[in-house]
Amino acid sequence: MKKNLGALTLLFPTPVLVIGSYDAQGTPNAMTAAWGGICCSNPPCIQVSLQKARFSHSLILAKKAFTVNIPSEKQVAEVDFLGMASGWKVRKFEKVALTPKRGEQVDAPLILEFPVSMECQLLKVIELGSHDLFVGEVLAAWADEEILNDKGFPDPQKAKPLSFVPYDKSYYGIGPRVAWSFEVGKSLM
Amino acid sequence: MKKNLGALTLLFPTPVLVIGSYDAQGTPNAMTAAWGGICCSNPPCIQVSLQKARFSHSLILAKKAFTVNIPSEKQVAEVDFLGMASGWKVRKFEKVALTPKRGEQVDAPLILEFPVSMECQLLKVIELGSHDLFVGEVLAAWADEEILNDKGFPDPQKAKPLSFVPYDKSYYGIGPRVAWSFEVGKSLM
Repeated sequence: MKKNLGALTLLFPTPVLVIGSYDAQGTPNAMTAAWGGICCSNPPCIQVSLQKARFSHSLILAKKAFTVNIPSEKQVAEVDFLGMASGWKVRKFEKVALTPKRGEQVDAPLILEFPVSMECQLLKVIELGSHDLFVGEVLAAWADEEILNDKGFPDPQKAKPLSFVPYDKSYYGIGPRVAWSFEVGKSLM
Repeated sequence: MKKNLGALTLLFPTPVLVIGSYDAQGTPNAMTAAWGGICCSNPPCIQVSLQKARFSHSLILAKKAFTVNIPSEKQVAEVDFLGMASGWKVRKFEKVALTPKRGEQVDAPLILEFPVSMECQLLKVIELGSHDLFVGEVLAAWADEEILNDKGFPDPQKAKPLSFVPYDKSYYGIGPRVAWSFEVGKSLM
């Protein structure tokens, strides 16, 4: 039996992303966001949706740039802190052992301890209501060399990314590989 | 050491979503999408990004409605098939043991075998390049009663949603709970 739970964004799991930006004085800020994802392949684009009142919202609008960082399981306390604390009130990088470093392509900070980071140039802002949807074009994607597989891309079992389940208020790790894509479905073609 | 892999959408994991729609004759179609996510809380909105040439793209534009279904691990072959086969060439529901049922709120088919389904009304279409970003407002969110936890929301360990890692061409299961959100980071506040 199906139950109608109402008008809810019951999508899960979502990725766990840490968004980096600078203020006008060049002070770095970072916030955790779970409302985000890939939204275009060419040009390569990512969307992150932020509440209008967020400090990062004003910074990204001003600089037209942000980074999208993928943290690892072991950094879950820092990730949760970066989602709770506000850059309006506290310099978050003074509270956590994380290192911001200016991107090579955009004026936004990469976070060195996270295994993957992308530099994004702001392309579009779409007002939706509580959140504005920011589309960023990825200009560079950085990964720790020690997590790369033999094809040169991050191995998820080494990167150990987090996922978020909003209505469960929980972070989850990545499980085992279930199947290869564009492969397991061939039996039905 | 960090390595620049180039201008890539290196975001992972992404959710695995099956998008349901009807054509003008009421024939149901479904396609798997991994470029999607939550994008607003109020109104509750989800974004899915589809290539312009996709059959589903034309159907959603015509009906201004779609469903977002969350399949389970055991349905990975069907999911992969729904991402490979084209609705321009084949009636996909004739090839798989999945049951479409018209939504109560919108003119799009829920897929009954999947543990979670949302009915979405098309709010906006944003052209980005290879993909158009569709924003849908969620009008109803359906879940199997047997996967609900004691708070009335889906238990991820019962729903067993898939995640996708694009550059790894793989579907992954959900791992163990790593931490509670808005909780584990309090030690740093």
